Amino acid sequence: MNSFGMKLRFSTFGESHGKALGCILDGVPAGLNIDEEYIQSELDRRKPGKSEFETARKEADKVEILSGVFEGKSTGTPIAMIIFNTNQKSKDYTNIKDVFRPGHADFTYFHKYGIRDYRGGGRSSARETAARVAAGAIAKLMLQELDITILSGISEIAGIRGENFNYEASKNSIIYALDISKEQEQKDAILNAKNNHDSVGGVSRVVVKGVPVGLGQPLYYKLDGVLADAMMGINAVKAVEIGDGIDSSKALGSQNNDEIRKDGFESNHSGGILGGISNGDDIVLNIYFKPTPSIFKSQHTVTVTNEEVDFSLKGRHDPCVAIRGTVVCESMAALVIADMLLLNMGSNISGIKKYYE
Amino acid sequence: MNSFGMKLRFSTFGESHGKALGCILDGVPAGLNIDEEYIQSELDRRKPGKSEFETARKEADKVEILSGVFEGKSTGTPIAMIIFNTNQKSKDYTNIKDVFRPGHADFTYFHKYGIRDYRGGGRSSARETAARVAAGAIAKLMLQELDITILSGISEIAGIRGENFNYEASKNSIIYALDISKEQEQKDAILNAKNNHDSVGGVSRVVVKGVPVGLGQPLYYKLDGVLADAMMGINAVKAVEIGDGIDSSKALGSQNNDEIRKDGFESNHSGGILGGISNGDDIVLNIYFKPTPSIFKSQHTVTVTNEEVDFSLKGRHDPCVAIRGTVVCESMAALVIADMLLLNMGSNISGIKKYYE
Amino acid sequence: MNSFGMKLRFSTFGESHGKALGCILDGVPAGLNIDEEYIQSELDRRKPGKSEFETARKEADKVEILSGVFEGKSTGTPIAMIIFNTNQKSKDYTNIKDVFRPGHADFTYFHKYGIRDYRGGGRSSARETAARVAAGAIAKLMLQELDITILSGISEIAGIRGENFNYEASKNSIIYALDISKEQEQKDAILNAKNNHDSVGGVSRVVVKGVPVGLGQPLYYKLDGVLADAMMGINAVKAVEIGDGIDSSKALGSQNNDEIRKDGFESNHSGGILGGISNGDDIVLNIYFKPTPSIFKSQHTVTVTNEEVDFSLKGRHDPCVAIRGTVVCESMAALVIADMLLLNMGSNISGIKKYYE
Amino acid sequence: MNSFGMKLRFSTFGESHGKALGCILDGVPAGLNIDEEYIQSELDRRKPGKSEFETARKEADKVEILSGVFEGKSTGTPIAMIIFNTNQKSKDYTNIKDVFRPGHADFTYFHKYGIRDYRGGGRSSARETAARVAAGAIAKLMLQELDITILSGISEIAGIRGENFNYEASKNSIIYALDISKEQEQKDAILNAKNNHDSVGGVSRVVVKGVPVGLGQPLYYKLDGVLADAMMGINAVKAVEIGDGIDSSKALGSQNNDEIRKDGFESNHSGGILGGISNGDDIVLNIYFKPTPSIFKSQHTVTVTNEEVDFSLKGRHDPCVAIRGTVVCESMAALVIADMLLLNMGSNISGIKKYYE
Repeated sequence: MNSFGMKLRFSTFGESHGKALGCILDGVPAGLNIDEEYIQSELDRRKPGKSEFETARKEADKVEILSGVFEGKSTGTPIAMIIFNTNQKSKDYTNIKDVFRPGHADFTYFHKYGIRDYRGGGRSSARETAARVAAGAIAKLMLQELDITILSGISEIAGIRGENFNYEASKNSIIYALDISKEQEQKDAILNAKNNHDSVGGVSRVVVKGVPVGLGQPLYYKLDGVLADAMMGINAVKAVEIGDGIDSSKALGSQNNDEIRKDGFESNHSGGILGGISNGDDIVLNIYFKPTPSIFKSQHTVTVTNEEVDFSLKGRHDPCVAIRGTVVCESMAALVIADMLLLNMGSNISGIKKYYE
Repeated sequence: MNSFGMKLRFSTFGESHGKALGCILDGVPAGLNIDEEYIQSELDRRKPGKSEFETARKEADKVEILSGVFEGKSTGTPIAMIIFNTNQKSKDYTNIKDVFRPGHADFTYFHKYGIRDYRGGGRSSARETAARVAAGAIAKLMLQELDITILSGISEIAGIRGENFNYEASKNSIIYALDISKEQEQKDAILNAKNNHDSVGGVSRVVVKGVPVGLGQPLYYKLDGVLADAMMGINAVKAVEIGDGIDSSKALGSQNNDEIRKDGFESNHSGGILGGISNGDDIVLNIYFKPTPSIFKSQHTVTVTNEEVDFSLKGRHDPCVAIRGTVVCESMAALVIADMLLLNMGSNISGIKKYYE
Repeated sequence: MNSFGMKLRFSTFGESHGKALGCILDGVPAGLNIDEEYIQSELDRRKPGKSEFETARKEADKVEILSGVFEGKSTGTPIAMIIFNTNQKSKDYTNIKDVFRPGHADFTYFHKYGIRDYRGGGRSSARETAARVAAGAIAKLMLQELDITILSGISEIAGIRGENFNYEASKNSIIYALDISKEQEQKDAILNAKNNHDSVGGVSRVVVKGVPVGLGQPLYYKLDGVLADAMMGINAVKAVEIGDGIDSSKALGSQNNDEIRKDGFESNHSGGILGGISNGDDIVLNIYFKPTPSIFKSQHTVTVTNEEVDFSLKGRHDPCVAIRGTVVCESMAALVIADMLLLNMGSNISGIKKYYE
Repeated sequence: MNSFGMKLRFSTFGESHGKALGCILDGVPAGLNIDEEYIQSELDRRKPGKSEFETARKEADKVEILSGVFEGKSTGTPIAMIIFNTNQKSKDYTNIKDVFRPGHADFTYFHKYGIRDYRGGGRSSARETAARVAAGAIAKLMLQELDITILSGISEIAGIRGENFNYEASKNSIIYALDISKEQEQKDAILNAKNNHDSVGGVSRVVVKGVPVGLGQPLYYKLDGVLADAMMGINAVKAVEIGDGIDSSKALGSQNNDEIRKDGFESNHSGGILGGISNGDDIVLNIYFKPTPSIFKSQHTVTVTNEEVDFSLKGRHDPCVAIRGTVVCESMAALVIADMLLLNMGSNISGIKKYYE
């Protein structure tokens, strides 16, 4: 239940304030160059404490490979990666020990398990997503070999929506803004909320280019279904769209169908997926994050013994989780596509005979 | 890959114009009263040909149980169900044999497998969802034993959005309209598109009541993630929201958090799920369907040998797939919740000891 | 839980005296010629009532394909197959309705589920293995494309052990005897037991030829581990050996190691598997069946209300289940090897690039 | 593919001479007391270098818990455990770098993956089983809560078979001999082989007591099938028996059936499993290990470029892998039983209603 993927499968462990977190990535094909600097660079994109738009918690998020790589190459055996927590500060958590923070998983974990690690949200903290980014980096190395690239950025914050998306420019934006003309307005919205002890939501957009036709395993391991699971399972995500998504539901068939010409589709309302299988066009996803539940305003809540209290959270929190979240979306997309690449092999007997001859 | 669920798991088979379709539902607890009439009544809600708002294809969708039930009760062994296709009319399909219909899975199936059953979309046809409804009906029988109920209906068609939802009234609406005051306008939009040889999209809303706290298996078999997969995997679905969904991404944390009181949550922006686990409140989903890709207008497309042609589809098609789709959404939700009920057992050692003592 | 295999996966349904039994075989590569006569011929090898060495129950075991095949070829979608029970005679079962037959699963099913279909053992009957043979036949069609062949036969009955094995000759033996010089003695042992209202055990031997090096997914989906599961899961099997098996445990390392030369291994003590992966040599399995628990001698037992009774079974039963069981062993081996062929694709990046270029 | 179990599932990583090895154990119920000293004591039973009957490689096998435990109790989240390798000595491995050792997985790994970590067998080394013992120790802590106990020992070495088994006494035997009267003879056989630069095989016997009736998920996750997989997947195992195993195949039905009385079965030929489900009696397994393939005698083999060479292995090796292997068998049995306990919950609706009321 703490694993994701079928043929390329990762399993994660670790809590926000435990000794370490990490993952085992299983099913990586042998012979892949494992560039550790690249993996670290991906983690650096997600790591906290880089600016005032993020939590002040400082973590180096230094990743170490424990297995599965020999003389710089993957061996086909499980790649374990570990990240030690360095800034645990667990002394801070006495005040939330017995209180369920609104909007958090405290309430549900406690009732499900009868026990919870209350330090920083324990297992339910988004800190776990560092492990996904480490795994996703290796998935990306694999995708590079097949000329598949993944791009992402923030299309909207606090309802301020970008229109002209520039994925290259977003890499240099501290909030990964896709529309640089809206960046300042979006930044202001974040800081305004932060100064009011509040938080804002946002939207990540992910595009995958170069995906071959045929990825996705119908009918219950469809490319769109698995992407939806991958994205909805990221902390704070509340909605996922493929292609035109919600707008499709308002369109006519004659508007929404992508007509076909010799050299490809005339439009891409479908977001690159038909019948759960990639059609060769760009895969397009929009992922909607709720505002960070951790706010400093006083809120009504109850204790573990169900006593009502008013509670003001303290500590260090992202005012907008979507920003660092977009790196996680990208990583999850990479892991899904890589898994589907492996699963698709063997779809027809001629491919199998070619492989084994 | 044609199976869904972990502990309560169903596997489906069958094509639109094959001999039969059906499923094996595995993991049904023993001792459940299997009410065949109820199962048939659920299929009747989804079956085609009931009105001008649906395809004219007539299918009785008569379901037969082949195994797993003894003297009216489930035995704990796999329940196989079969529905024979009676209205195959496969002679009609010569004109689309070599053509990829825009918006359909013809293109992707052909490229993935190198062969396709072109009769009515073959495996990619929504006809397969009859099997999901049969399985879902048994899941609902199980949920009834635990006082969990699932409701659904159509909240929006062609951009015409309802506001006051009445799940009881929607049962008597031929288009399952949730807001009866909008029903006529929504019907008109469907018929208008149909008369123009076009189609419309729509939105299904699903609510699950009475779910105990604690369902969902973090971190990669989360309740919201699995629901998103279940819904996105339904034919023509392009977006899924949990709770406030997209609106959450525009809200402030102080607006979006559900504060807690002794007797429960003060609001339900979260849609009943926190950290991937049910919180005891209603689970709320919105599912967005694109317009039916099967339209009679002429469209650009290519043949299997990549020659460009203009193509006008013939035949019988739903002008709005969301309508019958909402029954499928409800069924998939039932299957997910029932699976999660089973998986949740064993979450803590005291529950296990109680079970085995 | 009623499914087997990872990428080539079958799910079975049905009870001994239900309407029908069958399976869904998922993951069959598209484009495979599906020879229905061949599938039926495989079922004919397993079907009951062919001689006095088998149960007198007559079943045509006529298999019908319901889906996944179009114009004689697999389409990559699930292949459902059904076999209707024609000789149910369930009126015979009143006398065992409330009694647990020694050596049978009656006791365990009743205690696990609280209910059981007592007619002919219900789900626990070896009748279900017909579905495995149907699925296995398709696996064999796939293996044929890669020049892999599977042979099997009976090496021992009632302790009478063959020495010189002839797989071709065994096909013409009504008891599938591998050593024709022992056939008569083995037959006599069966009939002798039968006449004494008793039963005998036996041993099946399976050999797979032409398996490429590299099949098997370490460390927990090893070729030998999965074969062991596949065989031990067959009704009445109590032991499984790979290669020299038990004899290996008595040998010295210098005797047991298979030394290697340019053109292959000098011996095959390992049974073609090293480290859970095929080494290119013949895969060799011995599968040990207990005597049929259904005997007509009086035995001590208890009723469902735990009252002690002496009980003599009536009805029609195989005096030696190993005979028809060897066909099932062969089928399960085919399914495992075919699954492993699919899983092995993608083991290294160069193979993946070759596949997708 | 490096994971085992369904609901209680562990995933391992690590190579013989890598930085570390370990596992993630997922699905441990919350609230279990995690006694770290006990886990370490289990590892100490398996660790190398304790006597002349084992490899001279010294490893402390110190296990560290990284996650999933809070204030001494499991939290229901994944428990990661790590063991750092301290005695890697990888400088020794130049002589085997390009040679396939007979009886080892060198040949198969190289051909499957195109690359291998040749240091000490890399991933295929039995060193990985330390992770299984760590996971198994936690499974045993869970079984203790339900009064289930697992015993094991060595019943036979080099063909010298014990007869009167004493599981308590075997704990004090350096070779875990079950029949103390045969211990000296068995020890002599090991040392004799060792002095001749050879090795011997052996047999482990595992007994599980106190298992409730009903464990095992038919038909393809049967208790006996999964145990067979678990045992056959252990390094060097070549045969597995349940209950009387091979002897059953030579018995008559009237001898082999376990007759039933009010208070239980009159005998236990079945080894506690009927129809793949536990019957409440002791579960009995015999596991057969081949002799260690690592011997110092000269053997024929080939290099990675397929040149024939004669090769004498050097280094440190167990002269009989069965000895330490029996601890692994016990651990795997514990993991299987614990998994089955969890899976069995939900078998019938009355149990589910009791759980949730």
